[in-house]
Amino acid sequence: MSQDMTLETVRALDAKDSLRAFRERFVIPDNMIYLDGNSLGPAPKSAFAALDRAANVEWGQDLIRSWNSAGWFELPLRLGDKVGELTGASAGQIAVCDSTSINIFKALSAAASLRPDRKVIVAEGTSFPTDLYIAEGFVASQPDLTLKLEGVDGDTIEELLGPDVGVVLLNHVNYRSGRLHDMKALTRRIHEAGALVVWDLCHSAGALDVQLDDCDVDFAVGCTYKYINGGPGAPAFIYVAKRHQAEARQPLSGWWGHVRPFAFEQQYEAAPAIARFLCGTQPILSMQTLSGALEAWQGVNMANLRVKSLALTDLFIKLVEERCAGFDLQLITPRNHNERGSQVGFTHPHAYEVMQALIADQVVGDFRAPDVLRFGFTPLYVSYEDVWNAIEILRDVLVTERWKEPRFATQNAVT
Amino acid sequence: MSQDMTLETVRALDAKDSLRAFRERFVIPDNMIYLDGNSLGPAPKSAFAALDRAANVEWGQDLIRSWNSAGWFELPLRLGDKVGELTGASAGQIAVCDSTSINIFKALSAAASLRPDRKVIVAEGTSFPTDLYIAEGFVASQPDLTLKLEGVDGDTIEELLGPDVGVVLLNHVNYRSGRLHDMKALTRRIHEAGALVVWDLCHSAGALDVQLDDCDVDFAVGCTYKYINGGPGAPAFIYVAKRHQAEARQPLSGWWGHVRPFAFEQQYEAAPAIARFLCGTQPILSMQTLSGALEAWQGVNMANLRVKSLALTDLFIKLVEERCAGFDLQLITPRNHNERGSQVGFTHPHAYEVMQALIADQVVGDFRAPDVLRFGFTPLYVSYEDVWNAIEILRDVLVTERWKEPRFATQNAVT
Repeated sequence: MSQDMTLETVRALDAKDSLRAFRERFVIPDNMIYLDGNSLGPAPKSAFAALDRAANVEWGQDLIRSWNSAGWFELPLRLGDKVGELTGASAGQIAVCDSTSINIFKALSAAASLRPDRKVIVAEGTSFPTDLYIAEGFVASQPDLTLKLEGVDGDTIEELLGPDVGVVLLNHVNYRSGRLHDMKALTRRIHEAGALVVWDLCHSAGALDVQLDDCDVDFAVGCTYKYINGGPGAPAFIYVAKRHQAEARQPLSGWWGHVRPFAFEQQYEAAPAIARFLCGTQPILSMQTLSGALEAWQGVNMANLRVKSLALTDLFIKLVEERCAGFDLQLITPRNHNERGSQVGFTHPHAYEVMQALIADQVVGDFRAPDVLRFGFTPLYVSYEDVWNAIEILRDVLVTERWKEPRFATQNAVT
Repeated sequence: MSQDMTLETVRALDAKDSLRAFRERFVIPDNMIYLDGNSLGPAPKSAFAALDRAANVEWGQDLIRSWNSAGWFELPLRLGDKVGELTGASAGQIAVCDSTSINIFKALSAAASLRPDRKVIVAEGTSFPTDLYIAEGFVASQPDLTLKLEGVDGDTIEELLGPDVGVVLLNHVNYRSGRLHDMKALTRRIHEAGALVVWDLCHSAGALDVQLDDCDVDFAVGCTYKYINGGPGAPAFIYVAKRHQAEARQPLSGWWGHVRPFAFEQQYEAAPAIARFLCGTQPILSMQTLSGALEAWQGVNMANLRVKSLALTDLFIKLVEERCAGFDLQLITPRNHNERGSQVGFTHPHAYEVMQALIADQVVGDFRAPDVLRFGFTPLYVSYEDVWNAIEILRDVLVTERWKEPRFATQNAVT
């Protein structure tokens, strides 16, 4: 990337962007530069269309018969296969259901059931907190398991991989720093030590060219409301490699995971494949919204997506460092492409106030305590010109010091 | 009820029905007599309004800021208090979240944690199956618990209530027969034996005058998509009596149950009250739909609702037995008001085909294997005239034997 970027050179990048037309598939509020798709993706128009049909026709008119006529019963596995297309998983290995937290519990339970003689679960100390909370809850519910946290990131995993470790829980992209792990290499090292891996894809699914099958992953979980744009709190997903499905056990054994869910039998018999990771009745309106959102992915090549994502984050880092130099911004995201997700974080001594001032000017990123400005870059609807304009506004916020206005001082944050 | 009911006398009942106006709050498909609100409630107009706002404004325009501005973060406990108004629970004891199955798992875990020295969990063999499946999964996940099923119903509980029983899981209304348990008496007997109770309200919440606090209930769960009309698969609820909240532990310890959910701490610390029964991120569009649905309950007196429910089921039983006599229909629902929920079941040798023929004529009930015709009566939108007309159509289906047509012979059923 040349040293002398201008608005014109940035516009030229947009002009030749093969993903440019996808922006039309989304509802983006007027004048907003939305750099928070790593927290909540904006609404695909196709999601609204699916929701409208689900509410007014399927619920409103067809009522109970929609379980069959509208395919409600097939949703978890049908949508699972669609999520698989975005994450390199062949059909029959992903179910869309419940929340990420619940699915982590299932995955840890199932992985531990496959390594009954190994009593240690390892997780990263820098994991997204709910991963640690669920691991803590699962381990506390079992008489003889312990949880070990490593200090910084996956580089130290090898030291912890003793013969007592059965399961390792890793975040593919760190929610705070944007650091990307090498899924293939870490999975191999974990397997060599005799353990199984659970990958959390919340901050990578829909943003990177994830290749679950190719990396020989055992279990994975992820959410669909960030980069996949499935709607606020949209149901999460769980991936279980085919080779583990017959043996894996998880205790959240509700009716939807039964081999004959409509036979109303007294005893549980797990469905033979990925369906055994389903539990109770799912929120259909949110599921159908996600179904519509997944239509917006038709024709997207994930490798191309990744190329643009890196170009956007490269441009953002370069422009911050050039045009906002001298304002105490420190990059916390790796510069190396192989170690970077689709988000960029900078620390600033007054990060909270600066982010509030940016949001007031319609540049929407988010703040992560204690001092991180976090920006997500989503190639389907963010343009190079958006990046340019966001930096101009950031520069203006810093130069004018208007982040010091009292209205920007009250703290609030949501994942 | 007089012996010689006519369409005119039935219409007179509607004319003086104090709940009659509530029907206007619902979308009921033209010409449909909907007697399946015990499986999936129809759409309240206020639910559609709330959903439209949630989708187009909160998600579409306000995006991530809606966590605060639209009160997304407060939804589980705010809606929980609203559900409490329908179930006799004072504020701060119900959370709306996850599925019934997941909430049964939490409730069993928490109840067992309060009775650590008692190693037996008792459930009814005739429970709704997912209750048994979850109990089985929970017990199997613990090294020293066992599950005992009683054969028929709560009347035999006392024999099972030994000093080793810590938790009893009961269905308030049996999903199949419509039999209603005496919540207060059974709860007292269970307490006298030193155990705790978990009541499943799926087939009673929104249909009866449930009094959780007055009955001294320990834990309860229920769904919101049946009589509460919250939308297909709408999030479920869990009740934990205030006296148990500080001590109760459940292993699904996700971020939303943390005492400081936005502090991103490494260790889990449970929220002090009912919030510790929350886990992961909830499906907001389904939550907001439920929020709108609960507005349709404004001004409903639950005691009046119960009076009309019994009058509707009395009328239905009477008319079936009078006008469909000689067609092999056998009542399986108790005649005694104190033992009847808000649904009526009749067995018939060809129940499946008869129900399909009824549905083809817009009388929508459902079939439960192997031989039950099940009809739900929901006082807010079902009229006495609906009951009359449903019976006329049932009689016609039986007299003409048109249920024998081949098109009514393929089996399918959904809870």
